[in-house]
Amino acid sequence: MELIPIGKIHSDFKTKSEAPRQGRLVNNISTIEVFDDYIEGIKEVKDVTHIIVLYWGDQSDRKVIRTKTPFSTTEIGVFATRSPNRPNPIAFCVCEVVEVSDREIKVKHLDALNGSSVLDLKVYSSELDSYPEAKSPDKKLKRNY
Amino acid sequence: MELIPIGKIHSDFKTKSEAPRQGRLVNNISTIEVFDDYIEGIKEVKDVTHIIVLYWGDQSDRKVIRTKTPFSTTEIGVFATRSPNRPNPIAFCVCEVVEVSDREIKVKHLDALNGSSVLDLKVYSSELDSYPEAKSPDKKLKRNY
Repeated sequence: MELIPIGKIHSDFKTKSEAPRQGRLVNNISTIEVFDDYIEGIKEVKDVTHIIVLYWGDQSDRKVIRTKTPFSTTEIGVFATRSPNRPNPIAFCVCEVVEVSDREIKVKHLDALNGSSVLDLKVYSSELDSYPEAKSPDKKLKRNY
Repeated sequence: MELIPIGKIHSDFKTKSEAPRQGRLVNNISTIEVFDDYIEGIKEVKDVTHIIVLYWGDQSDRKVIRTKTPFSTTEIGVFATRSPNRPNPIAFCVCEVVEVSDREIKVKHLDALNGSSVLDLKVYSSELDSYPEAKSPDKKLKRNY
């Protein structure tokens, strides 16, 4: 299972320490540059308000299976967290679409480091993807991301 | 960017024609079998109500950039759809956690074919991932997934 980059992210976050813990917490605008072979695939993104961005966490530690989070005092399984460190570092972020041009999409709330490789974009659907009632260990571990 | 399977999906959907258009539309229970090296990573999944499942669409056509959807009459860019066909066929599904054992997670609403490789699991956070206000071309194209 080999991935190919479909684009590249240009963001304000040049180093890990500059990157937000989660993009929804900041309002920076990032630019998704889409490579030539794929630009026909983004035309209708102008008609959606939110997209799912999958990108590659190339600075992630793929050996981590249990980890502390900013809000946990003990280690928990990575699959119950949003840690960037995990066996397949496919980062996931829901972003607000700000502007779409021929080969670029400007988005709000993306948490990616500058230069990250884009793997996929999908329309976000409130009917499919929105679960306001979802509960995570916030209550026990404060927040597990 | 090479992916490794962390587990395997056991579902009722043996063929493409049996698979639901979207998992949220059906109540079937699927089982995520987690491979030995990764079972320490799922322990705390018992504390969450919903997880994000990323899995590999091995029957996807990776050459597709524009496609018709069940609800569109013209072709639109794959990145504005939820089509399984796309350059990097990383399928995304939000699932309800039904039961967690040592090496298995039973979930509701997963749309994966039986035997699909699991790439990643992440806690779903209503604070981060829920955008009930999101609008997609539903209005223009009916539904674009």
